[in-house]
Amino acid sequence: MRRDIDQLMADRNLDVILVRGKVLGNPPLFYMLNGVHLTQAVVIKKRGEAPTVIAGPMDRASAAKSGYTVVLTTRYRYGGLLQQHNGDPLAASVAYYRRIFEDLGVSGRLGCYGYLDQGYAYAFLTALDAATPDIEIVGEIEADLIRVARATKDADEVARIREVGQHTVAVVKQTVAFLQSHEVGDNEILRKAGGDHLTVGDVHARIARLVAYEGLEDPEGFIFSTGRDAGIPHSRGQLNAPIRLGESIVFDIFPREVGGGYFFDLTRTFCLGYAPEPVARLHRDVVDCLIALEADVRAGEMARYYQRMTCDFLSDRGHPTVAEDPATQRGYVHGIAHGVGLDVHEVPRFQDDPSNGTRLLPGHLFAIEPGLYYPDEGMGCRVEDVLWIAEDSTVHNLTDMPYDLVVPMGAGLL
Amino acid sequence: MRRDIDQLMADRNLDVILVRGKVLGNPPLFYMLNGVHLTQAVVIKKRGEAPTVIAGPMDRASAAKSGYTVVLTTRYRYGGLLQQHNGDPLAASVAYYRRIFEDLGVSGRLGCYGYLDQGYAYAFLTALDAATPDIEIVGEIEADLIRVARATKDADEVARIREVGQHTVAVVKQTVAFLQSHEVGDNEILRKAGGDHLTVGDVHARIARLVAYEGLEDPEGFIFSTGRDAGIPHSRGQLNAPIRLGESIVFDIFPREVGGGYFFDLTRTFCLGYAPEPVARLHRDVVDCLIALEADVRAGEMARYYQRMTCDFLSDRGHPTVAEDPATQRGYVHGIAHGVGLDVHEVPRFQDDPSNGTRLLPGHLFAIEPGLYYPDEGMGCRVEDVLWIAEDSTVHNLTDMPYDLVVPMGAGLL
Repeated sequence: MRRDIDQLMADRNLDVILVRGKVLGNPPLFYMLNGVHLTQAVVIKKRGEAPTVIAGPMDRASAAKSGYTVVLTTRYRYGGLLQQHNGDPLAASVAYYRRIFEDLGVSGRLGCYGYLDQGYAYAFLTALDAATPDIEIVGEIEADLIRVARATKDADEVARIREVGQHTVAVVKQTVAFLQSHEVGDNEILRKAGGDHLTVGDVHARIARLVAYEGLEDPEGFIFSTGRDAGIPHSRGQLNAPIRLGESIVFDIFPREVGGGYFFDLTRTFCLGYAPEPVARLHRDVVDCLIALEADVRAGEMARYYQRMTCDFLSDRGHPTVAEDPATQRGYVHGIAHGVGLDVHEVPRFQDDPSNGTRLLPGHLFAIEPGLYYPDEGMGCRVEDVLWIAEDSTVHNLTDMPYDLVVPMGAGLL
Repeated sequence: MRRDIDQLMADRNLDVILVRGKVLGNPPLFYMLNGVHLTQAVVIKKRGEAPTVIAGPMDRASAAKSGYTVVLTTRYRYGGLLQQHNGDPLAASVAYYRRIFEDLGVSGRLGCYGYLDQGYAYAFLTALDAATPDIEIVGEIEADLIRVARATKDADEVARIREVGQHTVAVVKQTVAFLQSHEVGDNEILRKAGGDHLTVGDVHARIARLVAYEGLEDPEGFIFSTGRDAGIPHSRGQLNAPIRLGESIVFDIFPREVGGGYFFDLTRTFCLGYAPEPVARLHRDVVDCLIALEADVRAGEMARYYQRMTCDFLSDRGHPTVAEDPATQRGYVHGIAHGVGLDVHEVPRFQDDPSNGTRLLPGHLFAIEPGLYYPDEGMGCRVEDVLWIAEDSTVHNLTDMPYDLVVPMGAGLL
């Protein structure tokens, strides 16, 4: 959480952190700005002090919404420095940051975060380090400070994610209602008003509109795939495939707040009209597994335990899993869970490898998604909820949606 | 253009380039992948040779669509290296890249691009440089190779941008039709079916849906602002403001292909019902200026010339401009143009400063947008087209939409 940042700085022996870049597509910076939208910014925070935001004059009003002290870029007069350094942008940028550091009293170990072009970051920070003897530039390789802070969500963040979840559920329910509204034609294929087959592509187009209607955006795309494609976890669906009764449909959708913000992640598996027994069995095994997992989620447990638990559970039901064969493409073939926040996949990590020492903590918020895949049998099933561990260690399911497999055709909502 | 990359490498004395990161939100990498969507990738290109794409097994099929040789990450066995290096991710990552470089025969000056966390990039590239005596890591500060290559568009890119433009025009026309479909109530305010005022917020919601209907996304938001807000270039519009006849409405929209891709950028200014003379005069001056600029755009000219030309033109019409007072908030207050592509603002730069030596070239594609702003008089006007300079130096307007100011209320499309 944001309130942990001072402690995380102390753990890393950092005196100051600097987070910069464009705001769009830059979750570390968006996070440090308290979720405020502006074009670009530099955030500087000394340990034990509130952050300072350096922003352009056009962004003055937005920057103020962060709640932090705002200093305008014009104060540091980059243009003059560029002239003084004969148009050399590297020398001018280094001088510009030295001016900022002097103004804000920055010295000591400086942790640097935020997305920039890697070559630029390397050249610039190397030059800055050389030009500032009282500052040591620190880069982190993994589990960096901002990533770790982001992994545990505060009440405001949970409220925002919960709301994205409600809109996501609305998209799924309206998609189901759209499917239900169709006539069934020859070969159990759904048909449109004009008589043509309803295709996966038609449903994709409808989903895209529903996402916009719900005030969300969908930068990473979604999965709505049927039959064999439902049996391939990363298949988004064949656009020309017709929608027919009795096929497994995997619908996995992970939209976020418009303009960059918090994600949600929700998967359900459906059969229209009826479910053939093999699909019904898959679904039963997956839902039973999810219910068992959810009953067992608790603060203090190793995250990797849940991947092992899933493999054990599904193996007991007779399915191949990645525990016995990491390369299997049948049965349970992927990871069980991932943090959800400003990225759709973020820490905590749940990988079952010995280097993963992550323990679940109050504040962790993550998607948990057991699945079973049999592409050669033309079927797959995945069901996914978002869970949150509150301060008092109680576990809350933020996904308010039943698991029902069979969607009856005709009237009515799911 | 992509075909210039070898020449741009030679200009910079680079033997190899490496572009990496997540693909989403990473235009340099998306560009090097020929606009193919996958999760993350490393692209390595030696001078005079085709690129190699290193991608995960899940992304194998997508990576192949780039048309380049694909090598799977599994070939370089990161997991084993992590064990070998006792779980140290920096040492393991350096060893991993050394393995890649050896396999692909990489040596010499290596230009590094693509967005990564700045601290990670600094720490990793510093360690990589130290561990590879036959490789020199090169970072560029400005006008870097990929940015310069991207500034000139090839035929495929122009076709994609043109298509985004057609959908963008459709959004604007449908928004106009939506406005026209309303009744006019007291005080010349548009009212909804229930009798409430139609607000800027209602129109914003409609625009968001139209963007989705047209198969576009809108990561940077749009501007639909009225009256005084239309007179503040960066105001997105006050959501609770009612829509009334005779007010200047600035509609500036810059959507892109869904999932990250090419942008378009279009601005028109409207008055519903009628235009008061001061607004009509602003619009005349701005449209005349745009027409004069478009007639004068030519390959070989300095880009900064057009900013000066705009200031001269609008100053002759009696408006204050940034040429006399860089801080003016009345009259012409911003830059005239910017490249459009995988970023909504990219090179070429049109700033009128002596350090800007950019000349217009065949392949350049840019938005050009004169505007006049009088917030205290409650009005503003901006009109924006996208131009492209073809190989034969002919100039093409990619914005197929009239400039008409007055939108008659009642039936009919613009």
